[in-house]
Amino acid sequence: MLEKLNLTMLVDFYEFTMANGYLVNGLGDEIAYFDMFFRTVPDEGGFAIMAGLEQFITYLENLHFSEEDIQYLRSKGIFDERFLDYLANFQFACDVWTVREGTPIFPHEPIVTVRGPVIQAQFVETMLLLSINHQSLIATKANRIVRAAEGRAVMEFGSRRAQGYHGAIYGARAAYIAGCAGTACAISDRDYEIPALGTMAHSWVQLFDTEYEAFAAYARTYPKNCTLLVDTYNVLKSGIPNAIRAFNEELLPRGCRPVGVRIDSGDIAYLTKRMRKMLDDAGYPDCQIVASNSLDEYIIRDTLMQGACIDMFGVGERLITSKSEPVFGGVYKLAAVERNGEIVPKIKVSENVEKITNPGFKQVYRLYGRTSGKAIADVLTLHDEEIDDTKPYEIFDPEYTWKRKTVTDFRAEKLLIPVFEKGKCVYQSPDIHTIKRFCAEQVETLWDEVKRFENPHRYYVDLSEDLWQIRQTLLKKYSMK
Amino acid sequence: MLEKLNLTMLVDFYEFTMANGYLVNGLGDEIAYFDMFFRTVPDEGGFAIMAGLEQFITYLENLHFSEEDIQYLRSKGIFDERFLDYLANFQFACDVWTVREGTPIFPHEPIVTVRGPVIQAQFVETMLLLSINHQSLIATKANRIVRAAEGRAVMEFGSRRAQGYHGAIYGARAAYIAGCAGTACAISDRDYEIPALGTMAHSWVQLFDTEYEAFAAYARTYPKNCTLLVDTYNVLKSGIPNAIRAFNEELLPRGCRPVGVRIDSGDIAYLTKRMRKMLDDAGYPDCQIVASNSLDEYIIRDTLMQGACIDMFGVGERLITSKSEPVFGGVYKLAAVERNGEIVPKIKVSENVEKITNPGFKQVYRLYGRTSGKAIADVLTLHDEEIDDTKPYEIFDPEYTWKRKTVTDFRAEKLLIPVFEKGKCVYQSPDIHTIKRFCAEQVETLWDEVKRFENPHRYYVDLSEDLWQIRQTLLKKYSMK
Repeated sequence: MLEKLNLTMLVDFYEFTMANGYLVNGLGDEIAYFDMFFRTVPDEGGFAIMAGLEQFITYLENLHFSEEDIQYLRSKGIFDERFLDYLANFQFACDVWTVREGTPIFPHEPIVTVRGPVIQAQFVETMLLLSINHQSLIATKANRIVRAAEGRAVMEFGSRRAQGYHGAIYGARAAYIAGCAGTACAISDRDYEIPALGTMAHSWVQLFDTEYEAFAAYARTYPKNCTLLVDTYNVLKSGIPNAIRAFNEELLPRGCRPVGVRIDSGDIAYLTKRMRKMLDDAGYPDCQIVASNSLDEYIIRDTLMQGACIDMFGVGERLITSKSEPVFGGVYKLAAVERNGEIVPKIKVSENVEKITNPGFKQVYRLYGRTSGKAIADVLTLHDEEIDDTKPYEIFDPEYTWKRKTVTDFRAEKLLIPVFEKGKCVYQSPDIHTIKRFCAEQVETLWDEVKRFENPHRYYVDLSEDLWQIRQTLLKKYSMK
Repeated sequence: MLEKLNLTMLVDFYEFTMANGYLVNGLGDEIAYFDMFFRTVPDEGGFAIMAGLEQFITYLENLHFSEEDIQYLRSKGIFDERFLDYLANFQFACDVWTVREGTPIFPHEPIVTVRGPVIQAQFVETMLLLSINHQSLIATKANRIVRAAEGRAVMEFGSRRAQGYHGAIYGARAAYIAGCAGTACAISDRDYEIPALGTMAHSWVQLFDTEYEAFAAYARTYPKNCTLLVDTYNVLKSGIPNAIRAFNEELLPRGCRPVGVRIDSGDIAYLTKRMRKMLDDAGYPDCQIVASNSLDEYIIRDTLMQGACIDMFGVGERLITSKSEPVFGGVYKLAAVERNGEIVPKIKVSENVEKITNPGFKQVYRLYGRTSGKAIADVLTLHDEEIDDTKPYEIFDPEYTWKRKTVTDFRAEKLLIPVFEKGKCVYQSPDIHTIKRFCAEQVETLWDEVKRFENPHRYYVDLSEDLWQIRQTLLKKYSMK
């Protein structure tokens, strides 16, 4: 398991210079609140999918500094020995709240909040962002692709084009959570229970003297799991005829049916329609057609609109790297500090209005219509603020405050749940299949308008009156400076 | 070290179905030759940079199947016990030739060749492609960015936006090889000797009551390593004045000079010119200006053209994910088999002419002008073919064969060198600094026209007369089928 790695040192060096600085300046025990949030949805989509939490939890549980780490830091000649002692005896002591994996998430809402001694709460930034940014990116992309396939299976086929080993493995995990049926990657199956599938490459076919011999050998070897790659030479003139012959001569006598045929090149809309007819005519209407070759949500949608006969899509590089937008821009910002037991909200102002942060220690409520079951809006509140869903509740746009709407007949659910309390994990990650089901259910709560690929309806992420007031006060204070 | 991981199972499942199939069909000992090559340079550039070899070598040296792996495969119920025995006693026995890390590489030339029992030579495909595709992608992008910076230092700052943990770490490695001065990532420094730098985040500044207090505390803590982040509030009105005051009050009395100031937002061309003047006027012409914020080769070039005063660039997400083109499309194709001791070349034909492979067991020669020192062309030959560089040598375009050129006064160098012989590693990777120097020297051998960002001159990758004849013969044979 990759989790065995000690990744404590996978951290931006400035986390050490700051941490040492906090300690020697007597601020090490200052209590700080940090939020992770993101500003825009990849591919101009309507929502993202939260993923990567389980790996971040494992990281926090393993967080410790080895003697080697201490020696390395000492060799830099800039750190105080008290700080190196602190690291040698490091005990994680923060509280952490997060949104569950598989949840649809929206810009500007906290998806993770960390509270604790600033020296620690700051330190976990790099691995938090790295874990959640990566897997949320791939989950978000995979969910788009899965939705485009309209119920057909989508397999993740991208290991060879992933950005590094974890890119392949955790990418397969995120893709599965977001709705993929499985992966081509064996280690993801062995370690994460993501079903792996695979049959043959073109080289298998080339290694035999004829395509038919290659197919016949494969059918004899895997009579119950026979999927043949039919595009090494010519799909319609040789691939499909040879496949049918191998099914007839090697499978039927053994009482077996073929599983499928696969193509990885050519015009898949045209070819799969012809392939379907040939297979049906030969008595194999149950033989599935698997298509791959630089697919993404747009190509899948187009080929289906053109009547392509495809039962399963294999999607590689454009999924495993989220090629059209390979960065999930989650950030980690100071939201508050405690002074004399009081929470003092902090704001980061910017000329770019989009970059102004939401101050304070917060909770996120999702309001669901009781009748429709659909998500209506998210509301950011102060952490201890309660939304009483037995009464009408007025939401308003935090920028255009005259845009108001009273919500009735709704259910309010807290999205941020406790994961660590004073450094102890209080959350058990569900198994991956449960997360996958949860994700599908949650995406189902979104209106189709939010799920549109282009120009989706902007889902409401509003502030409570109290939080909005705090934000306004801080903004005024800074603008007068 | 990440290398301690056993990544044997990071493999596409079809490698197992094929390998088992080869074994039970009596083809397991068939000798096959596979080439890794790529078809297009990312970002429409003129060349790519080879990287990731060291990690692939480590993988091959560790290649073995644990009892857990065997159990996992057995549980699938499709593999022959003879095959599982074979895996339990697996001994890597292939020959491997590769291009050195740091070498400029071009489309359609083999950058790795594997020869051995097909059951093994096929199996290593996933990890070979994953390792080399990822690091070559990042090295290629990093080299573009470094060239745009025209001698100024470029730091890799992207860990938090990388695609997984190896994406961050091996990405930093590839970036360093290709010319970056260092990284923000501590583990890459500790384990790979890539210098790590870092100072403070905005949260440091926010945590103090005033920006000046934050700067003064940092200057006191790191008098010899003082770089201040000056854009938390307002760069020109508060950031730079407060930084100058901290330098004056905290550094000068200690006999220290500032290292630098950093900005991560705003119009860096405009701001850095003003910053430079303010720092110079205050007596700090030696204070470096570091700029970051969604940079890439184009933005760097533009800001420098506008006279930006920047000494060091920090480049994050657009480097560590190669955002503009996040996939390096290396493929691994069968090139030949041995039958009765004879090498039989294999070709993969395709309607797409770009996808037709170069058959046979090959070598790649690079021809350098003896006077200019510049690379003139690469020539793919049969593996045992010698190019005699004491005589004129005619090269020709493999598509437009009337385009011919006689090269004289040149030196021919073999690019594919032996790395494994019969499964034993015969190559010692140079240390990373040596690879970095080698890369810089090799990029220097390319003409400026090949290095242009847009519309670069297409470097010649030609075939020897003998290899061209073999390819033509096979093409004719297939077109007549």
